[in-house]
Amino acid sequence: MNFEILSVGTELLLGQIVNTNARDISRMLSELGMNVYYTTVVGDNPDRLKEALKTAAGRADGVILTGGLGPTGDDLTKETVAEYCGLSCVMHQESRRRLIERFQKMNRPMPENNWKQAEMPEGCIVLDNDNGTAPGAIVEHGGKVFIMLPGPPREMVPMLREKVRPYLEQKADCVIHSRTLRVFGVGESAAEEQLKAIIDRQENPTIAPYAKTGEMELRLTAKAESVEQAEELLMPLETEVREILGDFVYAEGETATLQQTVVELLHERKLTVATAESCTGGLVAKKLTDVSGASNCFHCGFVTYSNEKKEELLGVSHDTLEKFGAVSQETALEMSRGARLRSGADIGVSMTGIAGPGGGTPHKPVGLVYISISAKDFHKAYRLQLAGDREMVRERTSLYVLDMIRRYLLGNLDADYVW
Amino acid sequence: MNFEILSVGTELLLGQIVNTNARDISRMLSELGMNVYYTTVVGDNPDRLKEALKTAAGRADGVILTGGLGPTGDDLTKETVAEYCGLSCVMHQESRRRLIERFQKMNRPMPENNWKQAEMPEGCIVLDNDNGTAPGAIVEHGGKVFIMLPGPPREMVPMLREKVRPYLEQKADCVIHSRTLRVFGVGESAAEEQLKAIIDRQENPTIAPYAKTGEMELRLTAKAESVEQAEELLMPLETEVREILGDFVYAEGETATLQQTVVELLHERKLTVATAESCTGGLVAKKLTDVSGASNCFHCGFVTYSNEKKEELLGVSHDTLEKFGAVSQETALEMSRGARLRSGADIGVSMTGIAGPGGGTPHKPVGLVYISISAKDFHKAYRLQLAGDREMVRERTSLYVLDMIRRYLLGNLDADYVW
Repeated sequence: MNFEILSVGTELLLGQIVNTNARDISRMLSELGMNVYYTTVVGDNPDRLKEALKTAAGRADGVILTGGLGPTGDDLTKETVAEYCGLSCVMHQESRRRLIERFQKMNRPMPENNWKQAEMPEGCIVLDNDNGTAPGAIVEHGGKVFIMLPGPPREMVPMLREKVRPYLEQKADCVIHSRTLRVFGVGESAAEEQLKAIIDRQENPTIAPYAKTGEMELRLTAKAESVEQAEELLMPLETEVREILGDFVYAEGETATLQQTVVELLHERKLTVATAESCTGGLVAKKLTDVSGASNCFHCGFVTYSNEKKEELLGVSHDTLEKFGAVSQETALEMSRGARLRSGADIGVSMTGIAGPGGGTPHKPVGLVYISISAKDFHKAYRLQLAGDREMVRERTSLYVLDMIRRYLLGNLDADYVW
Repeated sequence: MNFEILSVGTELLLGQIVNTNARDISRMLSELGMNVYYTTVVGDNPDRLKEALKTAAGRADGVILTGGLGPTGDDLTKETVAEYCGLSCVMHQESRRRLIERFQKMNRPMPENNWKQAEMPEGCIVLDNDNGTAPGAIVEHGGKVFIMLPGPPREMVPMLREKVRPYLEQKADCVIHSRTLRVFGVGESAAEEQLKAIIDRQENPTIAPYAKTGEMELRLTAKAESVEQAEELLMPLETEVREILGDFVYAEGETATLQQTVVELLHERKLTVATAESCTGGLVAKKLTDVSGASNCFHCGFVTYSNEKKEELLGVSHDTLEKFGAVSQETALEMSRGARLRSGADIGVSMTGIAGPGGGTPHKPVGLVYISISAKDFHKAYRLQLAGDREMVRERTSLYVLDMIRRYLLGNLDADYVW
């Protein structure tokens, strides 16, 4: 089935809110193997809403509308759909009863215009709203389906999950199942060249790369009659991709993060890490502690922004700072060792660099960062030259540091590693 | 002028990302007094993109497209617009040079397919991309304007603000001028109630509240013939709003942040601050160092995630931790004092709490956080009970800590301050 999403609301066109409803509906449809070819936003304007509905219904098997179910004269979604289908809106007694009950519960008199919310297109499936006053509705007409949902996400999302999804599952003729590989250290286009042969011959399963800040997501998707069959289709593709990308793949899962992988590996090996941060200013520690339960492997971190504090808190030698500067391989090495020794952790990591916008020189330009790792048996620093603004340089640095820890724990980090 | 927004990207239709670009563009157009009647999302599909472009260009004076400027064969925005206007795409030497430079800086070979990003519709205005490899473009053709912007928000947003806005301002028949007040510590609806009288009578200038994570933005907008005239209209309104909200207003400016205000105040007063973080795990230090030049007032921070490290690095007494627990007013107080004394900074701040999802008890539920500030003449802790998930609790905590520093520096923080 092909769907279009039609979001109704002037506040969307004024940029006052972001359209998370379209994202949530699209995701659900995609999980059910249903296509969305267009999403449209239109204001609370009768003529343009009518035109948009006509266009959408002319192209798709179904239209999911959000918004415009409120009590005011501006709210015209039900009326417009009913008119398009040649139906009238009639009082729905059960919805009327729920409306009265709801206002009684809130101990508020019901404004007269709220009755409108209980008037539903005749013959529709009414979707009770447990989180607001506007019921949703499904109209089946002329081989098409029209699904109307309230605009506020806290009303829309539960209705979508609890009422619309089961309804649509009955109509789905297949299962769409995905696996997401998370990749760090390869740019989108470089990876694509390596994966080109696979991407070119893709059909079912498909493979799609998505660039994120400093990392990449590879989504492998199969269409089948069951999840088990889809998994069977995906397995050889995943193996092939993993063979090409090797340990650039750091995790599988839509919400997996580099910090999660690092924390899991530290747990498994019963090791602890301590951080010494200069240019990132606490970002790596923050990321490690994003992971609930990081307390087992991360006990402390140092943010040493000034040279003086690098000496005092980490024991970096004054001579090193004088001779090589704060942004140098030598300082990075002493910082990571200092973090390890002063904290008593198994692993110390450090980063020092020029995040910009100021502070760059021809010899040490903005984006130059040294990162270092110190363990009992291993002590190295790596030089990075990163692109982007201050925020980007700091974000990318933090990812490289996390990946350095990961590669060390996997035994895949050598002295002259280049990402 | 009437615009349509056309967002190109299959990842939007699959619900993998939310369309913040449409929101940001809508908002800018609305500030310029320009209308948006439709926003459409279409996938990376040549025929449907072509159809959507034709429809949009047929209805509006201008179309703003985002996405589809990448290096792969799927990326077709420039080609589709060029074809619609009867233009060809030609190599743009300056963009080519920038592309080479960018890859050289990253020390990475440029994949062959990246050249495509420097091929621009002939005669277009090229918009340099300072944050990515895809330049944007403006094509004026047949009385219509087509603006093409990259899809990733971190590339799109600066290009929109710095390049598209000045271009469109010249086309506007009036000046729409805004001032943005940034507010912390008041919920949207509470502030709205206080501001209701103003909002109800609004016409020109207008006032619009936008809720952000834990804070609020109040946008005051005037329509006039010149910026000076608009400023004159805005001044009395701003005064009135500031009288109602008092020091809840922490800054004026669209991109202003709480950390900027804090760093500026510290600079002015020639004071330094040190952080001792538990539940936030480095987030406050990271935010302070978001501000370029923070090194004058922030020299170091401690992330003490375990009890042991709170004792070792900050000198929190073992007894305090035993008796009151890590999440307590007493521990917070000793942490902030420890941060100040161990760092030699003028001000020490601390935060310790239960960010969740685990770790809560009936007595100390998830979201319970103590924050504390220590200076020579002032030493207090405050109890917060915050809503939201782990990330939200950590984010909100960091904002309260920054605001605590701000209020202390302004002399507006008393012992029993309640936000």
